[in-house]
Amino acid sequence: MTESLRAQLTQLYERLRAETRERWNRDLPLGELLFDRWERARSLGFGEGASIYHLSLVYGDVEVGSNTWIGPFTLLDGTGGLRIGRNCSISAGVHIYTHDTVKWAVSGGLAPFEHAPVVVGDCCHLGGQSIVAKGVTIGDHSVVGAGSFVNRDLPPYSVSVGAPCRPVGHVEIAPDGNVRLVMDGSDSTDEQRGY
Amino acid sequence: MTESLRAQLTQLYERLRAETRERWNRDLPLGELLFDRWERARSLGFGEGASIYHLSLVYGDVEVGSNTWIGPFTLLDGTGGLRIGRNCSISAGVHIYTHDTVKWAVSGGLAPFEHAPVVVGDCCHLGGQSIVAKGVTIGDHSVVGAGSFVNRDLPPYSVSVGAPCRPVGHVEIAPDGNVRLVMDGSDSTDEQRGY
Amino acid sequence: MTESLRAQLTQLYERLRAETRERWNRDLPLGELLFDRWERARSLGFGEGASIYHLSLVYGDVEVGSNTWIGPFTLLDGTGGLRIGRNCSISAGVHIYTHDTVKWAVSGGLAPFEHAPVVVGDCCHLGGQSIVAKGVTIGDHSVVGAGSFVNRDLPPYSVSVGAPCRPVGHVEIAPDGNVRLVMDGSDSTDEQRGY
Repeated sequence: MTESLRAQLTQLYERLRAETRERWNRDLPLGELLFDRWERARSLGFGEGASIYHLSLVYGDVEVGSNTWIGPFTLLDGTGGLRIGRNCSISAGVHIYTHDTVKWAVSGGLAPFEHAPVVVGDCCHLGGQSIVAKGVTIGDHSVVGAGSFVNRDLPPYSVSVGAPCRPVGHVEIAPDGNVRLVMDGSDSTDEQRGY
Repeated sequence: MTESLRAQLTQLYERLRAETRERWNRDLPLGELLFDRWERARSLGFGEGASIYHLSLVYGDVEVGSNTWIGPFTLLDGTGGLRIGRNCSISAGVHIYTHDTVKWAVSGGLAPFEHAPVVVGDCCHLGGQSIVAKGVTIGDHSVVGAGSFVNRDLPPYSVSVGAPCRPVGHVEIAPDGNVRLVMDGSDSTDEQRGY
Repeated sequence: MTESLRAQLTQLYERLRAETRERWNRDLPLGELLFDRWERARSLGFGEGASIYHLSLVYGDVEVGSNTWIGPFTLLDGTGGLRIGRNCSISAGVHIYTHDTVKWAVSGGLAPFEHAPVVVGDCCHLGGQSIVAKGVTIGDHSVVGAGSFVNRDLPPYSVSVGAPCRPVGHVEIAPDGNVRLVMDGSDSTDEQRGY
């Protein structure tokens, strides 16, 4: 009986895979082929046009604004309270934590978990695999570089990188939507930096 | 026929999703909804009360102590021998390697894989997306910061961060379980650091 | 009806899990147990002997050479054009991007996505969770350290680490396939470095 289910799953996978390749020119794990990213976001009460991959884990109370994109391999921990604005890119592999188990672990389970809220403003870009620790606020229109570890507040219109993540530049937006990322202490922009 | 299976999978997903939201206030990929983290740990011979997410890959011989928590998107490579103590937090996205394919790759497949064992002591906290390379021993009651790359031994009661990961402080535990993380060369504790 | 499907999925999972443990001494998520890594690679037109885990996302046009290994939790973005050579290790958690949404996000959706191609040469090792940004070329026989963020070209036979990722040494390969990683400005090799 399990062999029949296996054959059916393989057939279903191959059909959905073929359809998705044909239609979207992408090739995804079964969970992403089966379930709709926009439906999941709606069912979680996220804003209009927001989407969240199936391979994302959501804990506790997470508020997300309209048109925000949440990628695969992400973790959104709202157990300490998490609010994410509109039009953000929460790139693949981003973890946002509002609790940690540091003291629980090292004390052999004696100390409790610790919690603190996180706010990610509107129109922020969190680069791939960046991590936000509990208690942090990231201002609107900010850029966090891929692989960063954010453990302090970041101001609006900032460009920040590193572990720990610190501001290294700022964002300039022209009225027509044209964007420049200007690095502090130099004339270089993102073009030189290959950011 | 595959269309019927698809409809049934969607129904099952929506039911389990609703139950898990209601009961645990969390929203998870299907594999996590279907399978029990504690059952998997028991079936692997891990210690009592240990748990491991479905979205974790386990290779070779991995020994895990009681009450250790192993998160999603993790990789535990025991092909070179891996032992993890009790009451650890192996955070989401942690990779622990006991082999590497560096020389295999650059030699065009001529050189073999290399292996060396890893030991993670009791009561350790490995932060999100930290990576442990082959051959490393991490002492009991240690903290490894999120996103770190550990390629050398770390002493017991150490706080270490970075890539490569090096000690920057130590852990003090009072008899009542109260924990302080004290940074070396300063009076600052984790409270200032926002660790 | 969903309860019956659930029971069947559990039975199937437990059977495949037992077989995979017995045969390969590894314990994997259901998608990896169900689907074959080599079949997926073939169906994507990758080179002979290449393999790609089920838990990998592939976008757009991605060309992959023979015998290249692509791990779980990876993301291969070919929307801007991506070519990966033969005999590479694309380790678990690696993301290769050929577009970004930085300006799209901070402009509130006014600015378009940006694209640029990536080339990874033959016989390269990209360490776990390393990230390659759009527009980068990595030369043949190169090593990129775990957790690195690559935003500039890397020469052939280079060893590079960090975020941003920069060359710190080079690869020497003897005719018999024996490999040494030599760190610049020192006599140390990978043995000292614990690389």
